[in-house]
Amino acid sequence: MEFEQRLTEIADKVTVALDQLIPPAQGPEANLMRAMRHAALANGKRMRPFYVIETGALFDADETALLRAAAALECVHTYSLVHDDLPCMDDDDLRRGQPTVHKAFDEATAVLAGDALLTLAFKILSGEDTHGDPMVRLRLIERLADAAGAKGMVGGQMIDMLEEESPRDLNTITRMQRLKTGALISYSVEAAAIIGGASENSRHALAGFAQDLGLAYQIADDLLDAEGDQDVVGKTLRRDESAGKANFVTVLGIEGARERVRLLAAQAKQHLAIFRDKANILLQSVDYVLDRTR
Amino acid sequence: MEFEQRLTEIADKVTVALDQLIPPAQGPEANLMRAMRHAALANGKRMRPFYVIETGALFDADETALLRAAAALECVHTYSLVHDDLPCMDDDDLRRGQPTVHKAFDEATAVLAGDALLTLAFKILSGEDTHGDPMVRLRLIERLADAAGAKGMVGGQMIDMLEEESPRDLNTITRMQRLKTGALISYSVEAAAIIGGASENSRHALAGFAQDLGLAYQIADDLLDAEGDQDVVGKTLRRDESAGKANFVTVLGIEGARERVRLLAAQAKQHLAIFRDKANILLQSVDYVLDRTR
Repeated sequence: MEFEQRLTEIADKVTVALDQLIPPAQGPEANLMRAMRHAALANGKRMRPFYVIETGALFDADETALLRAAAALECVHTYSLVHDDLPCMDDDDLRRGQPTVHKAFDEATAVLAGDALLTLAFKILSGEDTHGDPMVRLRLIERLADAAGAKGMVGGQMIDMLEEESPRDLNTITRMQRLKTGALISYSVEAAAIIGGASENSRHALAGFAQDLGLAYQIADDLLDAEGDQDVVGKTLRRDESAGKANFVTVLGIEGARERVRLLAAQAKQHLAIFRDKANILLQSVDYVLDRTR
Repeated sequence: MEFEQRLTEIADKVTVALDQLIPPAQGPEANLMRAMRHAALANGKRMRPFYVIETGALFDADETALLRAAAALECVHTYSLVHDDLPCMDDDDLRRGQPTVHKAFDEATAVLAGDALLTLAFKILSGEDTHGDPMVRLRLIERLADAAGAKGMVGGQMIDMLEEESPRDLNTITRMQRLKTGALISYSVEAAAIIGGASENSRHALAGFAQDLGLAYQIADDLLDAEGDQDVVGKTLRRDESAGKANFVTVLGIEGARERVRLLAAQAKQHLAIFRDKANILLQSVDYVLDRTR
């Protein structure tokens, strides 16, 4: 399948880019870089980089710029996983098929490695290697800060942490997901649109696509948590269930959740209609979300 | 004393700016903003903002730009304190005369509030309100990421955490301090030089000033840790001593450390000679470091 080949190609490219962008493990602080590398160079799906690069292809956008934006975004995604896995957060031992950073190193190193990866993302975007136009770089930085900050990903994570105090209904879960995982998925297509100089029309369609896709992706993630094979997925499953935590599956039921994913996937595809054949691989990626096993 | 008045004026201005820049505590994630505000609006000395703004005055630099750069820098400094105080790091209960964030809230909220403050710093610098010239904003962002990242502040913090494994001599302590606290102090004068369009000569003098000042400041901090009054300082003292941790005072002795501060202060002042009378308040600030009580 063309999509899977592209996903693998892009994952490899992003891993090579991250290997070059993360400082080598040198000096008395070498432990920090080792922890950053442990987290960032692990075998991730690299879905967000995939959406940056394949969305950029719609506009024949500059490939170096797309790859650097994708690497910066993956740094932010990785830092969020490292901090989310901490004992005071989700307390997870397994991530991307290997021990989490605080297990392989220690908690202090995990906090610092996350901090350094977040900082590195902005460093990458600020460099002139990313794009010749300073306004493009600034826009990428500003929107990443919006997507990752208190009114985006970190805000969503806060809502998730506070769940015990106010049990979640479908609206709260949806809002939480829009911030916690949706904001960075939306950023992946927005970054491509910024680099590619997309029209207002295209940006609008892509924003709708990303919103439906992000929600479908999260519901599929909750289905995977309920039904998946931990050895294939590479992270601890049935966590929400054992913590008595509400998610899309506990609220909608397995069949209800599956139906919702199908509906959202169909909607997501409709948004891509204006791009015609050029969006073929993006369309295929939606089917992949429908049938996730990892 | 003119210096103390300016320090108070600048601290007030920065606190007002931070109050406007940190999102209001709204929505289900309001806890996050409350924690950010608890940390950032507390009664800090605001030394780094002071150096941004008073160094900028040497070049009649735009005051709005200086204030926003100062606020961004204070966000980064504050986030580093919040994460440093975590149980897995320095495990501190008291900061700026009030409970640390993980004590007033909880550990997860402290991790997230720190993450959000770091992200906010880059958001502030990217906005056109900071400076009309995109290249100035990009340079401020790039250098902040350098100063705060794995090869700057976070790298220094990593070395500090690893101390148990390799006991520290004077060289290691000095290198650790240059990164952990020196990098952000150097950034404070560099940011002002960027905004003020300072000459190569001026930048060079300021870099030397900041390096000597940063080291003097840290040694004075270690003296304060050994001799200060905890109620005045507003944070837990004698921590290095009780942890058996080497610092400038344990290595140089009280008198040796005092002599070193005097020497560095004199050197720091010499770097300012090229600015003549314009540097009067900066010169006074050096005497203040010599005689710190908080």
